[in-house]
Amino acid sequence: MKRKCLDEDQCPIARSLDVVGDWWTLLIIRDAVGGATRFGEFQKHLDIAKNILATRLKALVEQRIFTVVSEAEGGHGQYFLTAKGKALLPVLVTLAQWGEEHTVWDAEGTKLLDAKNLQPLRRVELMSQDGRILRPDDVVAIEPA
Amino acid sequence: MKRKCLDEDQCPIARSLDVVGDWWTLLIIRDAVGGATRFGEFQKHLDIAKNILATRLKALVEQRIFTVVSEAEGGHGQYFLTAKGKALLPVLVTLAQWGEEHTVWDAEGTKLLDAKNLQPLRRVELMSQDGRILRPDDVVAIEPA
Repeated sequence: MKRKCLDEDQCPIARSLDVVGDWWTLLIIRDAVGGATRFGEFQKHLDIAKNILATRLKALVEQRIFTVVSEAEGGHGQYFLTAKGKALLPVLVTLAQWGEEHTVWDAEGTKLLDAKNLQPLRRVELMSQDGRILRPDDVVAIEPA
Repeated sequence: MKRKCLDEDQCPIARSLDVVGDWWTLLIIRDAVGGATRFGEFQKHLDIAKNILATRLKALVEQRIFTVVSEAEGGHGQYFLTAKGKALLPVLVTLAQWGEEHTVWDAEGTKLLDAKNLQPLRRVELMSQDGRILRPDDVVAIEPA
């Protein structure tokens, strides 16, 4: 099915998904967090055709998720996450924590770790303004009137 | 492009995206958090064809994101998030917070609020085991050796 355009949706979740709602976007960003900057590195990690990856990286540069630094000798250049791109890290972390708990895998997987001591991050908790931990049933979704 | 199967990927982010990596999945879950339980409610919110929604809801029931309670008189029944489905709420919240900050919208949008007092949630911060707030550059992605 053709992707619906959500960039003018009133819901901020929908607008975010307009940018990162295809599975490959967050995997490219994950690879960038892991240190990948070059076209060939992304291609090796994602195992997709060059023309498809080129289209995707171009879209992410247009969305200002990545900035690209050209090379003097031509070629693809290097791709770096912008502040806007780096701000997606909490989405990656919550997806990783959900995946660790709710999907099956019996070996060591990719980990997002504290750079200082290579320890796992604390589990993300949703909190109220006054510091209460909020369980799923403590949160409501309200649409504008 | 055909969706790659990621359910045996070593990366928990990829495995999560195998379940929720299509934009519509998280929007259906958002609507369920907002109180939708009936087929017609999801259809009205998402504005998609009945056969497409039926396929999607079936997939989410197979993934145990939703449980379906049948009705005596037939029909679609009611769809409720399981604990596994509700555990995706931090993913929705981090997407919403990113969307509020990094996408453009000039009116009131859907909000995820503290049910007790209808206040916005605290901004999600990534934290180390010992309680330091981690900025994006304080987090590294490590692949298994």
